[in-house]
Amino acid sequence: MNIKNQHYRTIWPTDDSNTIMIIDQRKLPHQFIIESLCTVDDAITAIRDMHVRGAGLIGATAGFGMHLAAAQARPGQLANALADGGQRLDKSRPTARNLKWAVDRVLKAAEQGTDEEDKKRIVFETACEIADEDAAFCKALGQHGSGIIRDISTAKSGGTVNILTHCNAGWLAFVDYGSATAPIYAARDAGIDVHVWVDETRPWNQGAKLTAWELQQEGIPCTLITDNAGGHLMQQKMVDMVIVGTDRTTHTGDVANKIGTYLKALAAHDNNIPFYVALPSSTFDWNISNGSDIPIEERSGDEVTTISGLTDNGRIETVQLTAPGTRALNYSFDITPARLVTGLITERGVVAANKEAIHKLFPEHS
Amino acid sequence: MNIKNQHYRTIWPTDDSNTIMIIDQRKLPHQFIIESLCTVDDAITAIRDMHVRGAGLIGATAGFGMHLAAAQARPGQLANALADGGQRLDKSRPTARNLKWAVDRVLKAAEQGTDEEDKKRIVFETACEIADEDAAFCKALGQHGSGIIRDISTAKSGGTVNILTHCNAGWLAFVDYGSATAPIYAARDAGIDVHVWVDETRPWNQGAKLTAWELQQEGIPCTLITDNAGGHLMQQKMVDMVIVGTDRTTHTGDVANKIGTYLKALAAHDNNIPFYVALPSSTFDWNISNGSDIPIEERSGDEVTTISGLTDNGRIETVQLTAPGTRALNYSFDITPARLVTGLITERGVVAANKEAIHKLFPEHS
Repeated sequence: MNIKNQHYRTIWPTDDSNTIMIIDQRKLPHQFIIESLCTVDDAITAIRDMHVRGAGLIGATAGFGMHLAAAQARPGQLANALADGGQRLDKSRPTARNLKWAVDRVLKAAEQGTDEEDKKRIVFETACEIADEDAAFCKALGQHGSGIIRDISTAKSGGTVNILTHCNAGWLAFVDYGSATAPIYAARDAGIDVHVWVDETRPWNQGAKLTAWELQQEGIPCTLITDNAGGHLMQQKMVDMVIVGTDRTTHTGDVANKIGTYLKALAAHDNNIPFYVALPSSTFDWNISNGSDIPIEERSGDEVTTISGLTDNGRIETVQLTAPGTRALNYSFDITPARLVTGLITERGVVAANKEAIHKLFPEHS
Repeated sequence: MNIKNQHYRTIWPTDDSNTIMIIDQRKLPHQFIIESLCTVDDAITAIRDMHVRGAGLIGATAGFGMHLAAAQARPGQLANALADGGQRLDKSRPTARNLKWAVDRVLKAAEQGTDEEDKKRIVFETACEIADEDAAFCKALGQHGSGIIRDISTAKSGGTVNILTHCNAGWLAFVDYGSATAPIYAARDAGIDVHVWVDETRPWNQGAKLTAWELQQEGIPCTLITDNAGGHLMQQKMVDMVIVGTDRTTHTGDVANKIGTYLKALAAHDNNIPFYVALPSSTFDWNISNGSDIPIEERSGDEVTTISGLTDNGRIETVQLTAPGTRALNYSFDITPARLVTGLITERGVVAANKEAIHKLFPEHS
């Protein structure tokens, strides 16, 4: 990923591995702030309060959070520290699949260690592996997804492919490349003309604050729209395809993603526009068969009644949007049923959103 | 309508009829400001820059704007002043049907005048009639619509009826009562328990700023949600019906309303939830048969990239939501096809959204 023409990942350990560095995404795009995580509690706070967010990145943060828990553990207390840290990391955001996936992976790997020092080494190496693999899987799914974009471009005789996305499933949501954005970056690298419609994604405005900024850093043409606008653009044939990410996808193809995704899937279906979901396989939930069983996070109504932005004199200020006493409800995710999903773009290829096809591509989970 | 327990209309002439008074809705809910319109240009600015908005209210403002044009006309210039004022009022917002309807009604009425003074008197009386009729029609459609709410309440054994609405089609959008809200107020008056889900309605946030405030003034329980949330709430069976307004509805039942309405209609259809559109017949377009022929207003992208709210120290401040150079597209309306509309609630009764049914109820337009 590219920030002011410099290469970054969204998370990385310091050379001595004592500290984990992240970008505090709450201040973007107005301020670019790198933050240090020194304890597992720092990692939990960063996830819960959304300094970091996005399926892959919170998985990687959980992995490194386990490392911080291990590093802090008093002699003889490593197992307890990992169990306690893992449990609290897993609970830091309820809908995200990658949290439990990363925690379980670290716990399982640690079992192979011969003593506490060896286990600590394994925990750190596993956390690094999780981050590296996230980047590699996103890069791979980008290659697979770019084929779909290429086909649309060919059908349009090389005309610009207009892609709508919701929320931020970009490199800021992963360790690098992103999920929904990876096919777009790969298509651009292959010389295909792309343009992205960016849903602003209320209430947290990940689209307006993160995706639009990220695409601009990459030089990808993009236009911000309200979450209300996508249906009209689809009716007007201004959208060629939709690509979104996911926080958890059942092994039957039901997709939990940022609230509002379901509405875009309905509109895509009503207008015969392909609707793709991009995900590294770490986001699959192999235990849940029905999307309605995925827990949906509810956050504070204050995220709806207030908003932050940059004032004329360069301060970040929070303003009240509503009359005093206005009550707001704030669910963070919704479920798009598999019937509305054209395909899932994974690191192993593009697959139909149904149990048979998914298990065929990932037979180790059958 | 009820503001701090005092009765208001949204527009009224002063006793000498020289000035038209409106509420400047741009400052709500933070400030309640009454503004004077003294010239037809004041009326055009008030409509274009959204000091007033909403189907019925901009129709009434256009009617009174014609009165201001007439009052300003130099001797011998009345016909020119009315033609010129009417043309400019009609163009002040492109999607709104009530503008042309009001202008045409005033022009036609004025033809009956014997001389310029008589015509001026007729113009003013017609403008007052338009406003009075708007209030009367909204009250009437409220009675018809409340029957639907009563039926749902009965089916729920008197349980709370949860109604989702988009944008503001409340008394602030009309002269009084509102369209989408009129059935809600009538149901409340009849002792039925109602609760309203208020879509915030980006980018202008009519729901957050106006509908939530208006409902609170009336003591109607309501909860603000993002525009993204309605689909999830419908999936969760937390919505019993949808009622929205409309800026123009074809005589075949296609509905132009605030951008995002189409997405809610799709979700209601997908979840078997009744989707009603409330309108006084002034909002019907008897000349357009296909919703896709309705002109869709495009407004400045600044409405998407910036937002205004109240700071801690009580100032209304505009903040930037995006990185510098972020491009935004801002269509104000979309078209909900008749196939997704359960029924139209009019001053003459509830009617199916198809040409035959609509013309049967309004035979004078056949």
